[in-house]
Amino acid sequence: MNRIYLDHSATTPMLPEVREAMLPYLGETFGNPSSLHWFGQEARRAVERARGKVAGVLGALPEEIFFTSGGTESDNWALLGSARVQAERDPGRNHLITSEIEHHAILHTAAELGRRGYDIDRLGVDENGRIDPDALEELVRPETFLVSIMLANNEVGTIQPVADIARRVREKNEQIVIHTDAVQAVGKIPVRLRELPADLLSISAHKFYGPKGVGLLFIRQGTRMPSFFFGGGQEKNRRAGTENVAGIVGMARALEISVRDLEEVNARIRGLQGRLENGLRNKIPDMRINGHPEKRVPGVTNVSIPGVEGESVVLNLDLRGIAASAGSACTSGSVEPSHVLHAMGISPELARGSVRFSLGRGNTAEEMDLVAGALAEIVDTLRSMSVPA
Amino acid sequence: MNRIYLDHSATTPMLPEVREAMLPYLGETFGNPSSLHWFGQEARRAVERARGKVAGVLGALPEEIFFTSGGTESDNWALLGSARVQAERDPGRNHLITSEIEHHAILHTAAELGRRGYDIDRLGVDENGRIDPDALEELVRPETFLVSIMLANNEVGTIQPVADIARRVREKNEQIVIHTDAVQAVGKIPVRLRELPADLLSISAHKFYGPKGVGLLFIRQGTRMPSFFFGGGQEKNRRAGTENVAGIVGMARALEISVRDLEEVNARIRGLQGRLENGLRNKIPDMRINGHPEKRVPGVTNVSIPGVEGESVVLNLDLRGIAASAGSACTSGSVEPSHVLHAMGISPELARGSVRFSLGRGNTAEEMDLVAGALAEIVDTLRSMSVPA
Repeated sequence: MNRIYLDHSATTPMLPEVREAMLPYLGETFGNPSSLHWFGQEARRAVERARGKVAGVLGALPEEIFFTSGGTESDNWALLGSARVQAERDPGRNHLITSEIEHHAILHTAAELGRRGYDIDRLGVDENGRIDPDALEELVRPETFLVSIMLANNEVGTIQPVADIARRVREKNEQIVIHTDAVQAVGKIPVRLRELPADLLSISAHKFYGPKGVGLLFIRQGTRMPSFFFGGGQEKNRRAGTENVAGIVGMARALEISVRDLEEVNARIRGLQGRLENGLRNKIPDMRINGHPEKRVPGVTNVSIPGVEGESVVLNLDLRGIAASAGSACTSGSVEPSHVLHAMGISPELARGSVRFSLGRGNTAEEMDLVAGALAEIVDTLRSMSVPA
Repeated sequence: MNRIYLDHSATTPMLPEVREAMLPYLGETFGNPSSLHWFGQEARRAVERARGKVAGVLGALPEEIFFTSGGTESDNWALLGSARVQAERDPGRNHLITSEIEHHAILHTAAELGRRGYDIDRLGVDENGRIDPDALEELVRPETFLVSIMLANNEVGTIQPVADIARRVREKNEQIVIHTDAVQAVGKIPVRLRELPADLLSISAHKFYGPKGVGLLFIRQGTRMPSFFFGGGQEKNRRAGTENVAGIVGMARALEISVRDLEEVNARIRGLQGRLENGLRNKIPDMRINGHPEKRVPGVTNVSIPGVEGESVVLNLDLRGIAASAGSACTSGSVEPSHVLHAMGISPELARGSVRFSLGRGNTAEEMDLVAGALAEIVDTLRSMSVPA
C-alpha cells in the first residue's frame, strides 16, 4: 500500500542527513563526554559543537542551551523548577499564568503545582485559538511569578503573540519568568531568542525531523533554575545524566536543516495545504477549518466535520493508508473531546468530529487530491451509516 | 594510534547488533507510538515488544517496566517519587536509608530530600566496600519508608547483598520500599527480579553495550509511584513524553545479548582481568587493588598507587592511547577524592592515586600486557618527577 503521512505534528520522519550525522555516535565515537580521555573528549566535542550550532540557529548563547530527553521534560523542568526557585525566594508569590490550550505537558504540570498549593490561572482563547494579550496583562498580579504560553498550538497550529505578551508582562513586573513551549513552532516559524524575550523555551527534536528522546530547555542567562535531575555534574550541574550524544548531534543537524530550508519548505507546504483545504471545502461544504486563518504554522489543517466521529474518520483513513489524527497523538485513545477546541468555543459534538492533517516536507500535490477525495467518501459513508437523530 | 579502551564502567561501545536493531526506528518506522494509525502502531508494537523482551530477561512483568531517559532519571524518580507518595500517605514517616558509596544520582537526590526535610541515613561500608546487612537492619526505624542500596558499585565494582538486605528490611517492616540502583550490575551479573525482592530497580542501557539516553525503572506491581514527568498518557500515565523508540529497541536488544552471553563474556573478562592484575602486582608491588576480592563485578580493577596522582596517570595513559578513569566519569574533573574510597577507609592521599580499569567484551590479552607495562612506566616517571616530601 502506498501510504500517505499527514501527521507531522505528532512526529516527523528523520531526515537522512540527520541519521548520517548520528551514525558515528552510535558506532565508533562512543565515549562518555564526562571522561577525560580521548574517547570521552571526542564525544564532548560533538556535544559542544551541537550546542554551539543550536545556539547559533536560535540566536542564543551556547551556555543558555540545556539538553533534555524531550519537550515534556523541558516543560516539566521549566514549570517545576521555576516554582521551586520561587518557593525558596518568596513562597507568598505563588501565582502562575498559562492558557487553556497548552499541551498536556504544561497543563498537567500546572495542575500538579495546583495540588501543591500554587494558584493557577488558565487564560482562555478566542474562536481562532488566539490569546488576547490585554486579557493576559490583566491577570498579572504582584503574586505572579511565571507566565507560560505556547508559541504555536499542536492541535490547530495557531501562533500566539508571545513576544508581545512577554514585553507587556515584563513592563508590569520584570521579575516574572516567561516560559514558552516552542515544540510546535521551531522548524516551522522563525524562532530567534534575541527578538523573543522569553526566559525559558522548550524544544523537542522529533517535531522537526530529528530523533525522538531528545530536546532542550533554553534558560536565558541570569534566570535562576535549579536542577531537575540530581546526580553527575553534566550540563553545568543543572541536568545530571550521561548525555544522549547521538540524539544531541541529530537534533542539532535537524534544527540546522529545518531552519535553513524554512522558507522554501514553508512555501511548498503552504501550496499543498491550500490545495488540500480547497479540495476539502469543495467536497465537504459544511466542514469548518479550525485555528487562526493567518497566524497559523504552515501545514496544520484541523477540520471539524458535523455528523461524524473524528476517530472513525482517522481509522477509515488509516484503512486507506492515510495517517491523520483526531486530536493530538499524546491524547489519542482518550474519549474526552479536545480541550483546545473546547477552549475555542467549539461544541463538544463538533469537536468530536475533528481531524488534524499536518503536512511535512515529503508530501506531494497528488497526495492532497487523494486525501481530499478519500475524506469526502469516508464522511459520506459514515454519515449514511449514522442513525438520524 | 591503536587505542585501548578500559573504561567500560563509564560507557560501552554499542554492539553492531544493537545498532542494526535500532536503524529501522531511525528510518522508515518513525511513527509516534501514541498515534492510532499504522505508522504509530508499528512504533507501538516495537516499544511493547522491547518491553516484553526486557521483562522476560529480568524476570519481571511487562507492566512493571517503565522506560526513562537513563539511570539518573530512574534513580531520581525512585527517590523523589517514593518520597512524594510517602509525604501524602504519612508525612511523619520521613526516614530514608542509603549508603555512602552510592552513585551521585542517588547521593545528590538524597541530599535534596534532606534539604526538603527528610531524614537521611547514609550507611558506611567495610574496607572492601561492602555494606553490613546487620548494620543496615539496625538503622531501620518505624519512620523508615525507603531503603536504596546499589547492586554493584561503579568505582570499585563491589556487589552488595541487596537480596539479603531486602529480606531483612521486609521482615522488620513490609511497608518499606526497597530500591536498588542496578546500573553497574545488569549485564555483568545475573539480575532476576523473581529472586531479588526489590520494589524499584534502575537500569541504564549504555552501560551494557546499548545506546545512551535510555534506561528504565522497574516498579514492582503494587508499589505506588507517582508520575515524574507530567503530560501525555505514555507509560500508563506514569512517564509522559513521546517514547524514544529507537533507544528502547536498542536497550532491549543490548540487554538480551548481554544476558545471553553473560557467562561466556565473564569467563573471558575474568581471565583478562587476572592477567592485568598479575601484571600490575608484579610491576608495582606497593599498589593496592580496591573492592571486594570475590564479590566484585567482573572486569572492574580499581587500584591505588602510592605517590602518584590518579588524574596524572589517566592523562599519561591517554597519551599512550589507553583509556582509563580516575574515579567515575560523572565526577571527572572534580578535585575531591573519591567518596567511595573514602568510605572504604582509604586515606585521601592514597585515594588520589587511584585509577579504575574497567574491561569489556572487546579487550584482548595483548592489551592487558601493554597496559600493565605502560602503567608501570608512567608510575616510575611520575614518582621520579615528584619532589620527595
